[in-house]
Amino acid sequence: MRLDLSYDGTDFHGWAVQTELRTVQGELMRVFDMLTRDHIEIYCAGRTDAGVHARGQVAHLDITQRQWDALEDAGRVNRALPADIRIHRMERAPAGFDARFAAMWRRYTYRVCDRSTLMNPLMRRQTLTYHRALDIDAMNEAARSLLGLHDFAAYCKPRDFSSTVRSVQSLVWRREADSCVMTIQADAFCHSMVRSIVGAMLPVGDGRQPTTWPGQVLAGGERNVGVTVMPPHPLVLEEVGYPPDEQLAARQRVTRDMRTLDGACDDPS
Amino acid sequence: MRLDLSYDGTDFHGWAVQTELRTVQGELMRVFDMLTRDHIEIYCAGRTDAGVHARGQVAHLDITQRQWDALEDAGRVNRALPADIRIHRMERAPAGFDARFAAMWRRYTYRVCDRSTLMNPLMRRQTLTYHRALDIDAMNEAARSLLGLHDFAAYCKPRDFSSTVRSVQSLVWRREADSCVMTIQADAFCHSMVRSIVGAMLPVGDGRQPTTWPGQVLAGGERNVGVTVMPPHPLVLEEVGYPPDEQLAARQRVTRDMRTLDGACDDPS
Repeated sequence: MRLDLSYDGTDFHGWAVQTELRTVQGELMRVFDMLTRDHIEIYCAGRTDAGVHARGQVAHLDITQRQWDALEDAGRVNRALPADIRIHRMERAPAGFDARFAAMWRRYTYRVCDRSTLMNPLMRRQTLTYHRALDIDAMNEAARSLLGLHDFAAYCKPRDFSSTVRSVQSLVWRREADSCVMTIQADAFCHSMVRSIVGAMLPVGDGRQPTTWPGQVLAGGERNVGVTVMPPHPLVLEEVGYPPDEQLAARQRVTRDMRTLDGACDDPS
Repeated sequence: MRLDLSYDGTDFHGWAVQTELRTVQGELMRVFDMLTRDHIEIYCAGRTDAGVHARGQVAHLDITQRQWDALEDAGRVNRALPADIRIHRMERAPAGFDARFAAMWRRYTYRVCDRSTLMNPLMRRQTLTYHRALDIDAMNEAARSLLGLHDFAAYCKPRDFSSTVRSVQSLVWRREADSCVMTIQADAFCHSMVRSIVGAMLPVGDGRQPTTWPGQVLAGGERNVGVTVMPPHPLVLEEVGYPPDEQLAARQRVTRDMRTLDGACDDPS
């Protein structure tokens, strides 16, 4: 089964099940287990960290027809779930589908308000308050040096045995009515990668660093203590992209070859 | 001074100061008093009820130059305010300005999600969850009978000595990506009027009442026990309209003549 869902990450300790902590995967498995009176494993495309939200998370689970019948439909599952998780679709996944390994790309947004008089209090749980004015053009110029295939070790929390080579397909800042929004799309992300990239962009935006700095950090090749990992609450997993059905199995093979199962990390938070 | 501001109404017991309860007016006056070391009265265009939000509230205060100097600017006041209130503009009000009595119209929105699979968890604090599918066209047909100048006593909590005659300038439902949104604009609103109108519309939308029903309730002329006053959290004061500066004083005279100061109510929540 393919599952499309959203959640408000505020009250979750991230996606992945943890003993005695409230997590998205934990809540989903609790409800699926309760409805099917069975044990169901659920795998997602982007294992978001504590406080990170999702508008377009994708997950998959292997279930029998009997278990599916017990779940009935997404409306029934939503009634059993807490209000901060909502399932948009429950559908039969095509052959070769794997929420994580068949994904082509993940797209995230990060929202920053640089002027208190523009701040919308109704959006404050998803917006960073920043006390210096940001120059969008300077940040977009700096962003260009991060595009393409690079080793993003400088922007990742190191984990043994896992590659930190990623391909950033787009990275754009734009000014909306009440905030500045960064949209970043990549094949996958390393742990804390998006929040570290934001941490390298904001000092460019406020003029404390030149537009060449984020590229220099990248070229440095190792975790840079000058780069702050920004807070999780303005980060939203917006969408996950998959290839056409007939290419799903091939895509899985490529991804699994590139990243070992143990060490792989595609959690950007 | 004219003040333009937003707030998240979730944690407020409405606009108006109440002893020992947290209110928007109370928080504003506490901060303005603290910064000016004086006592400042603040008056608003729409006295929202507990739980109602504002994206475009307008207020005014009479202050001296010395008091204004002490406040400095909106950024300084925002730093002293809690994060659920944000001031967008502080500016010298034109002669004849009165946030409440010079207003030409108020516009509110009310957000309802009628399908759990469309619900955006990040919007749930401003959205009503409704368990039956809504027919937007039927609600818009019903809405037409409420347009124009009427005695809205049937949709108001009665208050002695106050008129319940109001002019509804527009009332439209539209379906957005994740919810159905009602937008209503009137010269002013009686207490609980918007939430009662929503309470008469939803049974039309789900087919339990004919499209003629909201008009019949209106014609009944007194509070109708069949109409539920809907919850406050999906209601947002979006904008308040004023006439050109040279007509402000005249508009104030007209409004004050129409409604006695004691009994007047233009709080729709």
